[in-house]
Amino acid sequence: MLVVMAHGATKKEIDGVCEAIKAMGYTPLPMPGAQRTTVGLVGNDRRVDGSLVAELPGVAQIIHVSNQYKQVSREWRPDPTIVTIAPGVTFGGEDVPVIAGPCSVESEAQILESARAVRAAGGVALRGGAFKPRSSPYSFQGLGRKGLELLALAKRETGLAIVTEAMDDEGAHLCAEVADCLQIGARNMQNYSLLKTVGRIKKPVLLKRGMAATIEDLLLSAEYVLSEGNPNVILCERGLRSFDTTSRNLFDLTAIPVVKGLSHLPIVADPSHGTGRRDKVTPMARAAVAAGADGIIVEMHPHPERALSDGAQSLTPDQFSELMRQLRRVAEAVDRSIAGSPVGVA
Amino acid sequence: MLVVMAHGATKKEIDGVCEAIKAMGYTPLPMPGAQRTTVGLVGNDRRVDGSLVAELPGVAQIIHVSNQYKQVSREWRPDPTIVTIAPGVTFGGEDVPVIAGPCSVESEAQILESARAVRAAGGVALRGGAFKPRSSPYSFQGLGRKGLELLALAKRETGLAIVTEAMDDEGAHLCAEVADCLQIGARNMQNYSLLKTVGRIKKPVLLKRGMAATIEDLLLSAEYVLSEGNPNVILCERGLRSFDTTSRNLFDLTAIPVVKGLSHLPIVADPSHGTGRRDKVTPMARAAVAAGADGIIVEMHPHPERALSDGAQSLTPDQFSELMRQLRRVAEAVDRSIAGSPVGVA
Amino acid sequence: MLVVMAHGATKKEIDGVCEAIKAMGYTPLPMPGAQRTTVGLVGNDRRVDGSLVAELPGVAQIIHVSNQYKQVSREWRPDPTIVTIAPGVTFGGEDVPVIAGPCSVESEAQILESARAVRAAGGVALRGGAFKPRSSPYSFQGLGRKGLELLALAKRETGLAIVTEAMDDEGAHLCAEVADCLQIGARNMQNYSLLKTVGRIKKPVLLKRGMAATIEDLLLSAEYVLSEGNPNVILCERGLRSFDTTSRNLFDLTAIPVVKGLSHLPIVADPSHGTGRRDKVTPMARAAVAAGADGIIVEMHPHPERALSDGAQSLTPDQFSELMRQLRRVAEAVDRSIAGSPVGVA
Amino acid sequence: MLVVMAHGATKKEIDGVCEAIKAMGYTPLPMPGAQRTTVGLVGNDRRVDGSLVAELPGVAQIIHVSNQYKQVSREWRPDPTIVTIAPGVTFGGEDVPVIAGPCSVESEAQILESARAVRAAGGVALRGGAFKPRSSPYSFQGLGRKGLELLALAKRETGLAIVTEAMDDEGAHLCAEVADCLQIGARNMQNYSLLKTVGRIKKPVLLKRGMAATIEDLLLSAEYVLSEGNPNVILCERGLRSFDTTSRNLFDLTAIPVVKGLSHLPIVADPSHGTGRRDKVTPMARAAVAAGADGIIVEMHPHPERALSDGAQSLTPDQFSELMRQLRRVAEAVDRSIAGSPVGVA
Repeated sequence: MLVVMAHGATKKEIDGVCEAIKAMGYTPLPMPGAQRTTVGLVGNDRRVDGSLVAELPGVAQIIHVSNQYKQVSREWRPDPTIVTIAPGVTFGGEDVPVIAGPCSVESEAQILESARAVRAAGGVALRGGAFKPRSSPYSFQGLGRKGLELLALAKRETGLAIVTEAMDDEGAHLCAEVADCLQIGARNMQNYSLLKTVGRIKKPVLLKRGMAATIEDLLLSAEYVLSEGNPNVILCERGLRSFDTTSRNLFDLTAIPVVKGLSHLPIVADPSHGTGRRDKVTPMARAAVAAGADGIIVEMHPHPERALSDGAQSLTPDQFSELMRQLRRVAEAVDRSIAGSPVGVA
Repeated sequence: MLVVMAHGATKKEIDGVCEAIKAMGYTPLPMPGAQRTTVGLVGNDRRVDGSLVAELPGVAQIIHVSNQYKQVSREWRPDPTIVTIAPGVTFGGEDVPVIAGPCSVESEAQILESARAVRAAGGVALRGGAFKPRSSPYSFQGLGRKGLELLALAKRETGLAIVTEAMDDEGAHLCAEVADCLQIGARNMQNYSLLKTVGRIKKPVLLKRGMAATIEDLLLSAEYVLSEGNPNVILCERGLRSFDTTSRNLFDLTAIPVVKGLSHLPIVADPSHGTGRRDKVTPMARAAVAAGADGIIVEMHPHPERALSDGAQSLTPDQFSELMRQLRRVAEAVDRSIAGSPVGVA
Repeated sequence: MLVVMAHGATKKEIDGVCEAIKAMGYTPLPMPGAQRTTVGLVGNDRRVDGSLVAELPGVAQIIHVSNQYKQVSREWRPDPTIVTIAPGVTFGGEDVPVIAGPCSVESEAQILESARAVRAAGGVALRGGAFKPRSSPYSFQGLGRKGLELLALAKRETGLAIVTEAMDDEGAHLCAEVADCLQIGARNMQNYSLLKTVGRIKKPVLLKRGMAATIEDLLLSAEYVLSEGNPNVILCERGLRSFDTTSRNLFDLTAIPVVKGLSHLPIVADPSHGTGRRDKVTPMARAAVAAGADGIIVEMHPHPERALSDGAQSLTPDQFSELMRQLRRVAEAVDRSIAGSPVGVA
Repeated sequence: MLVVMAHGATKKEIDGVCEAIKAMGYTPLPMPGAQRTTVGLVGNDRRVDGSLVAELPGVAQIIHVSNQYKQVSREWRPDPTIVTIAPGVTFGGEDVPVIAGPCSVESEAQILESARAVRAAGGVALRGGAFKPRSSPYSFQGLGRKGLELLALAKRETGLAIVTEAMDDEGAHLCAEVADCLQIGARNMQNYSLLKTVGRIKKPVLLKRGMAATIEDLLLSAEYVLSEGNPNVILCERGLRSFDTTSRNLFDLTAIPVVKGLSHLPIVADPSHGTGRRDKVTPMARAAVAAGADGIIVEMHPHPERALSDGAQSLTPDQFSELMRQLRRVAEAVDRSIAGSPVGVA
């Protein structure tokens, strides 16, 4: 922590800050500048609360140098964390797995048709919400337990790993019975009770970045999961709120190399929510892989025009198959490979 | 709902859209323009899902005309909702109540000293968190149940109404035993499970606007509470995330007249989180009252320099007393009055 | 400037940074912390370019402590600057002048009618664009020189001071022949050539904050004008770009107390552009005065429904008159007074 | 244009809107819905000013269906515009040219060394500012005319095309004597006088997106250039202002496919300003090519640690050479090719 004194701060004020720092158990180190004096803390650690000195006379600003996050940082663990959600479905290594499926589980026919199309094109995991966070209480909220049963069925039929969203404690335990990876949605990124719950459940977690979350916020939310003893967190960039409504969200692909610099956790990209428009999904999925994404999660629906939610951003099975073909080429160009391979017919 | 066709859309494409609208049970009304044709839905209601037609050939854009929210709207209920959280503490009428207190309940001495200072200066409700949502899992998380007991004690001692935050289902039920009004924090504004829970508990709810929530998002979140049968929702503007870090948040006071135009619910302002700097709290509280706020919620701590959280934005009791004095003058200038009056000594 | 070393930076890397700082002519002051070492510069001044050390091995981050602006800062000049644009029209003192008028000068009848309405209600300055920056090249671009002549006529008729926008060098010289105060619009806030030009012309300048400008950016743009020898700059908050399109812009009233803390320059508020909706103008003008604004600039048109631009946010003369009445009450409540008084009939 | 009536608007109010539309010369088409009536304009064109009806009694909202831009739109011209700035340097076709060089021209040695490194690695155009828009008036502002002479020298020595920024009318004419392509910087994107000037000069223009510009704003600014008779505009995405300061800007790569859908103009990406961090430039340049960018513009300096501006985001010649190698692979994976090939030695 660094305490920047106001221009013209008196010696007495600087001494006051030094005394306060000593009272907190640290050593103050005043550093006079041409314009201002700065006082550093020697021996500071993560728990220093700057607000204790922020309002002393003559203090202009407090600057925090230490990160608040710890276990998620590269400094804590230099090697990448490899998260395996099911046999052969591994995030953070050379392989780039693709998770695909509908926004919501709608019916047995729909989820089975989806799962077969994912499998046929070479996807390795099925997404699909049984519990849906919707802005309006009057929108379709998901099939609930029935949806989970259908996901379990789709898994048995196709062998795909299952990724599904949990919205609350009870739902998290229910989802954990079926899912290989629990998704925490953007709206719940700072629902700390839920983060602790999935930390304790210990299944792999796919943590989506909130709509206006900084990367530090995202890492701190991941820290909640790790601090409960669950190291298997996959981060997910899915677009930020923006002033330009041409796209649904502002897809921040730079987050990928930034996260990789700061953290050892894998990060995947969701171009469906990131763009909100079906015809932008494929180019932006390519871009995500080129930027270094450790996986792609994408919405696909056998009949998007009949989807109960997010139809406008869902690919058709044919478009998904073409996406996979293009991603394989881009992955190869950056010395990686898309996990899995197309199998049989849909 | 309006379907805007692309420039150059063919008659066949327009017919296709009309057919799809008919299949959904509505009457299509094509409207040729110089550049484009637009097709309207006659008889549409809130449940139309635009994505069903958004991707038909020749469709450029879907425009929604109906609001998604219903019970919270002025159109649903033209008269203002008056929310009474305790005798004489009423939001939405001529009175402007001030809620004040520390960020967190820290100790018996601290909360009693706070409550007495609030009461002395004329505040009518005490705020203070027993459960604290903190970005870092290593920050102080609140005293929990012990904090609630201390709030109950402060209420008995001073008669102030109690406003405190609930972070999850279990906490909401605990808080409801003590609180006169349950606060839902900005980070949980779209925690729909929690919104439904406080909807069912039926205590008054103070719902804070999320960091990147549109006003429509805020109203839809309130709709979740109302749709469970709880009409007593007080909205709260507390600042948005912004690119300018000079202030902690970007305090959107225009939200006050905007909400009043769209909804019958009362709206209060939180200049402490809205600005994040103690010396900006008083001018912005004045501005909020001048803009038409139905109440003010403000952080005050008997010893901000020792606060365990948010010290930098907490007023001292003296500053709070001065704030109240200034707010009374501004309220009068807009034909309202600050609820309560200063009593005895602090 | 402070150089934050990475966690685990070696002694050699820290020494390398110290050497680089010495080579730049400053004294390095290493400050070991529990997590990281920070190296301060003693004797630094505003010209240090952090990028010279930012990329040395082991450097994690550069933190600038000095402000880049100088003459506009409170530290440079503790007393408020009072800018007088015409006799009795003074910004930065106790008086709060109101500038009003149409978005664009459209005709002799329109501008004279506007000016008389402004004068009648107690406004002291007339706004109106002769040169209009419009997003589309096909929108009305203003009457040009003819518009300036009409403004001069309105001034002769009513005695109001004239505020009008300059968009380029040539226009700035033309406007200066007529205007008492040259406006630089939000889109040109970082048009440094134009800022230098108006700095040299030496007429008072009303500098609007750009759509995504930080307060530091705004102050640095003002510094361009002052650095050319023109101290008469009035800053103007007019709303920022935001993700919520309910309002045209996000009106950042906190900028008012923030600017007053950092700078000695006066700051006015423009609730017309700040909100973009006629019915939000009056409450937000009140809020601006309550927050401490040194003036208000507002759009008023004798017939908004026929305005060639910005009709939806223009007040009618009657609404303007009511606005003035309300502002007088709020100004009094914050120990200030609205400049001028209503005269005769419109 | 569509006029949405308020819920509960009376027949008289709807008739009033219809009359107003007729008075404007169009045919009104009322469309009753379950909640609200919407009135469409048949035969509307781009010039309808919605504010004329926006404030009539009973009107809730105006929705514009037509775009304001015209000549830049895909609807105006379905085939891509190919902009050739010099022989073999062509934007908008299969080739993806790379423009590289220092932020500012600093000296003969620096710019020649830069140009040779660009050429050696296979770049086809040299960037470098002679006139620099800097936030602070005290920062290095460029060498001016001397800088232009040095660019001309570098062109003679290496054959590279020259791209350089113009900040005002006089500078635009000076730059045009030397440059193959005039750059308009982000801060001047809405400097309409300058846009008209470069429209009349008729040299190719590289137009950078403003910090908070929507894609529609960008296209409208391009329309200013085209409307003066200059069709040779290359758009450039260079990052938006964001709340997360981890990166300098928020690089909006989705703008690439979005622009390609709306406009026939080519679009390039600037990962140097887009990220602001040297180590993020290469992954994000790869991502831009994968997203479909028609070119890359990147900062490279022979000695970034001595650069007078933007050192922290400049690649070294070796890093640039590696960037080119990687881009060639990604371009091939999306069926394009990087223009030019590495030649001789640096």
